[in-house]
Amino acid sequence: MSADAHPLWRLTASEASARLQAGLITSEALARSCLARVADRDPALKAWAYLDADHVIRAARELDKQPRRGPLHGLPVAVKDMIDTADMPTCHNSPQFEGHRPSLDAAAVMALRAAGALVFGKTETTEFAAAGRNAPTGNPHDPSRTSGGSSAGSAAAVADSHVPLALGTQTGGSLIRPASFCGAYALKPSWSTVCREGAKIYSVTLDTIGWYARSVADLDLLADLYGLPGTPAPVPTVKGLRFAVCRSPEWDWTEPESREALAEAAGRLAAAGAEVVDLDLPERFDGLTPAHKRILYGEGRTAFLPLALRFGDALHDDFRNRAENREGFTPEELVAAYDLAALCRIEFDALARGFDGVLTPSAPGEAVPDRHPGNPVMNQIWTLLHVPVINLPGFKGPNGLPVGVSLTGPRLTDRRLLAVAVAVAPLLLPQTDVP
Amino acid sequence: MSADAHPLWRLTASEASARLQAGLITSEALARSCLARVADRDPALKAWAYLDADHVIRAARELDKQPRRGPLHGLPVAVKDMIDTADMPTCHNSPQFEGHRPSLDAAAVMALRAAGALVFGKTETTEFAAAGRNAPTGNPHDPSRTSGGSSAGSAAAVADSHVPLALGTQTGGSLIRPASFCGAYALKPSWSTVCREGAKIYSVTLDTIGWYARSVADLDLLADLYGLPGTPAPVPTVKGLRFAVCRSPEWDWTEPESREALAEAAGRLAAAGAEVVDLDLPERFDGLTPAHKRILYGEGRTAFLPLALRFGDALHDDFRNRAENREGFTPEELVAAYDLAALCRIEFDALARGFDGVLTPSAPGEAVPDRHPGNPVMNQIWTLLHVPVINLPGFKGPNGLPVGVSLTGPRLTDRRLLAVAVAVAPLLLPQTDVP
Repeated sequence: MSADAHPLWRLTASEASARLQAGLITSEALARSCLARVADRDPALKAWAYLDADHVIRAARELDKQPRRGPLHGLPVAVKDMIDTADMPTCHNSPQFEGHRPSLDAAAVMALRAAGALVFGKTETTEFAAAGRNAPTGNPHDPSRTSGGSSAGSAAAVADSHVPLALGTQTGGSLIRPASFCGAYALKPSWSTVCREGAKIYSVTLDTIGWYARSVADLDLLADLYGLPGTPAPVPTVKGLRFAVCRSPEWDWTEPESREALAEAAGRLAAAGAEVVDLDLPERFDGLTPAHKRILYGEGRTAFLPLALRFGDALHDDFRNRAENREGFTPEELVAAYDLAALCRIEFDALARGFDGVLTPSAPGEAVPDRHPGNPVMNQIWTLLHVPVINLPGFKGPNGLPVGVSLTGPRLTDRRLLAVAVAVAPLLLPQTDVP
Repeated sequence: MSADAHPLWRLTASEASARLQAGLITSEALARSCLARVADRDPALKAWAYLDADHVIRAARELDKQPRRGPLHGLPVAVKDMIDTADMPTCHNSPQFEGHRPSLDAAAVMALRAAGALVFGKTETTEFAAAGRNAPTGNPHDPSRTSGGSSAGSAAAVADSHVPLALGTQTGGSLIRPASFCGAYALKPSWSTVCREGAKIYSVTLDTIGWYARSVADLDLLADLYGLPGTPAPVPTVKGLRFAVCRSPEWDWTEPESREALAEAAGRLAAAGAEVVDLDLPERFDGLTPAHKRILYGEGRTAFLPLALRFGDALHDDFRNRAENREGFTPEELVAAYDLAALCRIEFDALARGFDGVLTPSAPGEAVPDRHPGNPVMNQIWTLLHVPVINLPGFKGPNGLPVGVSLTGPRLTDRRLLAVAVAVAPLLLPQTDVP
């Protein structure tokens, strides 16, 4: 625990990067400060599935000796424990993978290491980032509540300032909802723009690797690394920009705090000189949440069948449920779901191209009690539409927990959306206060 | 080399399975016979990237001791060397992965082992099943010619009767074209029906695991294992069935032998009492081959960027080309390609539902000289449409090499298409003669 009023663990990735680049701090010093923060906080929070302090310090020292490879050099990055790492176990929160050691880094981790990032440790996840066992992670703002799922540990570790950056994944709402619950920034990139090799598969149509940070500029650091699409030209102000407020077909699921957050965000944008209009999605979009479930279960059958054949009854029943298609979805229903999604993608892109960003809720409300991952219903539509989504924190619910809003736009416009988010984020008064 | 007139290596998977099940042969005896065939033929053919005879015999003995787990128990299956195996190297024909040992079986291999299959060895592939280095494999019917790519070794090993079954993958034409070149049966299942975890990624939209065999019944054995969709009700005769002959928008690429094979197949079906009509695809389908390339290169950028960051100039230029997007495809072009494909999927399914099967060429013509994998232009459209495709051998080109035809149908009707293929295959006089 650091008594320092300005401990290094408080730095965002961009702030730490600037200091590392200027030679003002070392990666080792930064790592030690982050480790002290973890030692102080994680016994209650339980964000980490694997963290070897000695290994981290050795790796940081090694990076300090090397010529700097760019802005990520020496920066701690957490990795969700269903993304392979060659130097640490990858256990998927599954009894069947206890102590499992991959022989190779996942592609996303390989890119991080090539850029000199300090792969810090593995963060807790819902089993296989899908179902089964919940993550044990608490919410940094109230340990009796969830940090969300499935990227529970990554969201909590970043929001609680253990590390400035963390990789997660989203198949339903596994990046954006925990970001909203914990008060972190998160990017779910457009589908297929970040290589998912070495991350556990649930649904090929839906699985997306993304990340958490404590500022939009930090999200952008990894967008550079992975070469996300779109035009990153700076957007200095929201004045003159055009935003849509989309209550989404799942609006009935929202609690008052999410409704108020969305209204407040819209109001602040308008007050700052942006044009803000309502966007009602066409009726066919009502079918997207059921379509998401059919694809999730249909492709989940494909993904979990080999594990069910291999492990039999030892495998959590949730996965045998998928493997056996107990819901009884037909191939025709799966094809209809694919095609509805494809038509809605075309239609949403056309609608969204009329705006600089589309605002929509990130979660039904603030974090729920216990360790249940929460309801992904506000996120599934956007995952299925393959669009980029950014969670912007800034609001609070009735129990004082964070509530975020989502900013989205057409497919493969990720860099433009991040540039817009740079201008939007400060208006939402983000919760930068760390407990 | 066996002097036996009825060596076990000649058996199809179904024939061998019946004998194993009846206790007439052991897996060890079958494996030894296959190994003898390999020893005789592979010095010239070069189908195998890795094959450890002692390991195979030990594993076969072990399987012989166990209670039978089903029809695949004890059957040799080859695995393309870009699909992970925990007990053998997986090298992707890449200098960067020389000697690489995965810590886990790919999902498709895990399912095979759970069913008691004998994972025999690893077969040669085009580098990363994508580009770069060609496989060294020759054609069983003429070693001076290619067996096709990228599943070069799997197609050759099955066609040349080294093993009765082999896994491969298709992203462009990597299963069906080698099957046509070598005279093997092959199934490219509907997209997303076989878990691709642990197989190298090139394009998430296109990559599909499939397999080779020497009969349609053998293809069906693995369709059972992987739980492919559709109705497997037997189709005893083609009489009264309705087939379409689709010359495909890429017809201009075909050589006379592929045109004649298609016409001859149509004629034999009609002679056997089937209704056969021409199917011209709507004009928008002309855009599918260019759309395939955009998706291949766009998602190839995603897939190869981490390797390019990690290995730099040591990586084959083909992959750095993808990582750097040297073709300059824009995000807008990629989105347009996704959307065209989605609309054509809907339209093709609607057209194909009017038939029991759609016949189309499997390759431009017979196998080309040298080790170039050949042109995938007759296959890319169908891969992008996500439909099941079966190669049915039976014809010959001007140099006496095999020429096959493709049978396809709507998405997720794989089992029905296999059932139809059972009735169609004998009419095409398959080349069961082994050199």
